[in-house]
Amino acid sequence: MKAKQLMDVKFAYINADDKIEDVSKVMEEIRRFTCPVVDKDMKLIGWVTSFDITKGLREGYDKISEVMSPPDEVETIKEDAPASLAVVMTADNHYVAVPVLNNDNQVVGIIRSCDIVKLLSALYDIKVVSIYEAMQKQLKGVSWEDLMDASATVASRTTGKKITAEEYENNIRNSTFGQAIWATGGLESFFVGLISVGELVLARRVGRARK
Amino acid sequence: MKAKQLMDVKFAYINADDKIEDVSKVMEEIRRFTCPVVDKDMKLIGWVTSFDITKGLREGYDKISEVMSPPDEVETIKEDAPASLAVVMTADNHYVAVPVLNNDNQVVGIIRSCDIVKLLSALYDIKVVSIYEAMQKQLKGVSWEDLMDASATVASRTTGKKITAEEYENNIRNSTFGQAIWATGGLESFFVGLISVGELVLARRVGRARK
Repeated sequence: MKAKQLMDVKFAYINADDKIEDVSKVMEEIRRFTCPVVDKDMKLIGWVTSFDITKGLREGYDKISEVMSPPDEVETIKEDAPASLAVVMTADNHYVAVPVLNNDNQVVGIIRSCDIVKLLSALYDIKVVSIYEAMQKQLKGVSWEDLMDASATVASRTTGKKITAEEYENNIRNSTFGQAIWATGGLESFFVGLISVGELVLARRVGRARK
Repeated sequence: MKAKQLMDVKFAYINADDKIEDVSKVMEEIRRFTCPVVDKDMKLIGWVTSFDITKGLREGYDKISEVMSPPDEVETIKEDAPASLAVVMTADNHYVAVPVLNNDNQVVGIIRSCDIVKLLSALYDIKVVSIYEAMQKQLKGVSWEDLMDASATVASRTTGKKITAEEYENNIRNSTFGQAIWATGGLESFFVGLISVGELVLARRVGRARK
């Protein structure tokens, strides 16, 4: 995934000559705490945050050019850079938004922290059952019942608490990947649990084949 | 994970009687776009964003009480609620921050979108090799070399491009879970790949045992 696939292309931008008062109204209306300042060719020439606006209003400045950060102080990302770079930039620097540039240094989009939260949380929201469904499809000759039986056996063994195949299926239908990771104590543990299930179900398949 | 384990307990708060001008300076200094308004018992009585501040400065209001949102318009989360709820709230509503309350409705922390990005991206940053290491530990009697051989075989088969065990190992040492999910086309596909590897390596183990 590239930055351009994550960015919002319908973003607001302002000009250096705009009045601070007018910009403050626009930012309130569209609810944006930050905004890129561009020239007539859409090249990035500055960056404004609500902090620049409150300072400008308080201290009686007039135009955006008087309060904006210069372009060399603005961290940007190229549209073809990996989207994960924007995630790292945002996580490390607490950015609310990062401007995305093309090769001509024109602003072509904005990546916002809320878009990143949406993207990353989508992974957390995947239902655990869909992973088991993919697993069953992959393991030829293993029925869904076999898989649930093996899973319940592994879960009972791991937790020391008896659980039936039906209860297990009910659990994975109602829980998300995010919950499962937090419940099992991390990504690796979650996968190890799945691998144990795979191992048991394959051993049982081999056992059946020999009979 | 609960909300209280994700929240920042060192947060700034303001009072309804504070002057808008003073608060604007504080918010600029600590770089916060939003801030809870509390009474003397730390109970939430309002919420202020930079938009309220710019409007207040522009229109000549004096005190925070004149521009803040009332408490019934502020979405909050209880400290014992699942942290995933804060993630969903932030993703769905584009919140920058959510106040965390205890059972007495006192503000005990703030969960910010940047904290959520940090938490979620940590999962994405896990090296793929650590999943394979956990897998090898689980699969008794399977050496690291067996595992890399099987992985290279599966990868060559899936992509139609020959890859050696050494190249495969190098890849997983240098890539993260996030990259792997994006590269394989989703969590389920990534996991199906792991299961194929597990299946092959177990079949080879059985094959060896029979010899």
